[in-house]
Amino acid sequence: MNLILLFKNDFIEDTNSVQIKGRRLKHIIDVHRAQLGDRLTVGLENEKIGIGTITKLNKDLLEMEVSLTIEPPVPSPINLVLALPRPKVISRVLLSASSLGIKKIWLINANRVEKSYWQSPRLDEDNIKKQLILGLEQSKDTIMPTVEKKKLFKPFVEDELPDLIKGTSPVVAHPVTKNKCPGKINGPVTLAIGPEGGFIPYETEKLIECGFYPFHIGERILRVETVIPALTALLTFQTAPLP
Amino acid sequence: MNLILLFKNDFIEDTNSVQIKGRRLKHIIDVHRAQLGDRLTVGLENEKIGIGTITKLNKDLLEMEVSLTIEPPVPSPINLVLALPRPKVISRVLLSASSLGIKKIWLINANRVEKSYWQSPRLDEDNIKKQLILGLEQSKDTIMPTVEKKKLFKPFVEDELPDLIKGTSPVVAHPVTKNKCPGKINGPVTLAIGPEGGFIPYETEKLIECGFYPFHIGERILRVETVIPALTALLTFQTAPLP
Repeated sequence: MNLILLFKNDFIEDTNSVQIKGRRLKHIIDVHRAQLGDRLTVGLENEKIGIGTITKLNKDLLEMEVSLTIEPPVPSPINLVLALPRPKVISRVLLSASSLGIKKIWLINANRVEKSYWQSPRLDEDNIKKQLILGLEQSKDTIMPTVEKKKLFKPFVEDELPDLIKGTSPVVAHPVTKNKCPGKINGPVTLAIGPEGGFIPYETEKLIECGFYPFHIGERILRVETVIPALTALLTFQTAPLP
Repeated sequence: MNLILLFKNDFIEDTNSVQIKGRRLKHIIDVHRAQLGDRLTVGLENEKIGIGTITKLNKDLLEMEVSLTIEPPVPSPINLVLALPRPKVISRVLLSASSLGIKKIWLINANRVEKSYWQSPRLDEDNIKKQLILGLEQSKDTIMPTVEKKKLFKPFVEDELPDLIKGTSPVVAHPVTKNKCPGKINGPVTLAIGPEGGFIPYETEKLIECGFYPFHIGERILRVETVIPALTALLTFQTAPLP
């Protein structure tokens, strides 16, 4: 937790003070080993970042006076269209995407997504929100991503995706193409990533029809939790050659 | 398991046939749902890739006749100097690095590595080997990485590292610098990544003295499991601009 994420309802009415309990309090005590008077990095959901000064602290409750003056980091220009990953990795994929600054995520169905994955409790709104918060706390961000579940591939790609990709460069990771990965793209990017085993040809064709540019990243097959940071970095991070 | 990794001692003496039991057999039955006569992608440790044709199959034993004709994928040019991560992520960091084709990993101590991490059973040779194998199976590779543990920072950086970085571009991820991340570097790269909270100034200075080029990747603080794929991609993957 490099930043304590605060919410509007943490504030004591008409003051600059917040009251914190539960997970965040436990972390502040156990990991930060905070004491009265300590100043912690805080941020208000969808608002600015700043400093919280501890004015009251016991094992059940913490109070901080907060001052929020700094803009959160610039969001990633990537919107992510992601075939629903296996339940075991959903949580850490969401946390990782959130920490990378991705603000729009659509979890979609695909032929090679096992139907049972959609029943995973890890897809409950509470768990999704928790992972997004952990990602923001990791990367000192406050802007809450949105995650939408799209359980039908064809209607999503035909009826919704054409509007969603407007004003972005839509690209799809696809092992069976000769196109190399584009480097840094200027402006927003819609990045589609398939399930383990990849999109089936019909699905890739639908995405290409919709305007997606297919590219590969070499002969290695990588797990989704490895591919997302790799592609986010390649498509969006600023680089400068060695001097 | 996109490739079944075979070992010399799987072979029935003086034949091209292997006998498989245990984890790999279970995976072949449960996930591949393989049957007699099926052809599976296989590879021999540190040797070529090819096809195994199932000649015998029951719940305790599988036999395959194998033909190995294809070179494994080109290794990553990255050698990784990694401050020992927290035990919870050691396994998946090793798996991920192995799947990315990294062949040399030094797990090193640093001021912000908690001493207890070195006692983790996840650092046992058996677990390390298991994760490396899972990474090779993921990325259809056969070349086994080496992992060395260096429990003393100063002697490693002063006495061993100068030789280890010869012929490579040594770079260190360091949030407190103005240098942007280099893009793709030609030739081998030695990439150093610090612990949660970063290397302390003394450690970064020692690495810079040794010849490492410090760079940052923006204001977000990312977890080690997110940083490794991101930096491996930026420093080594071939890209081509959108047409």
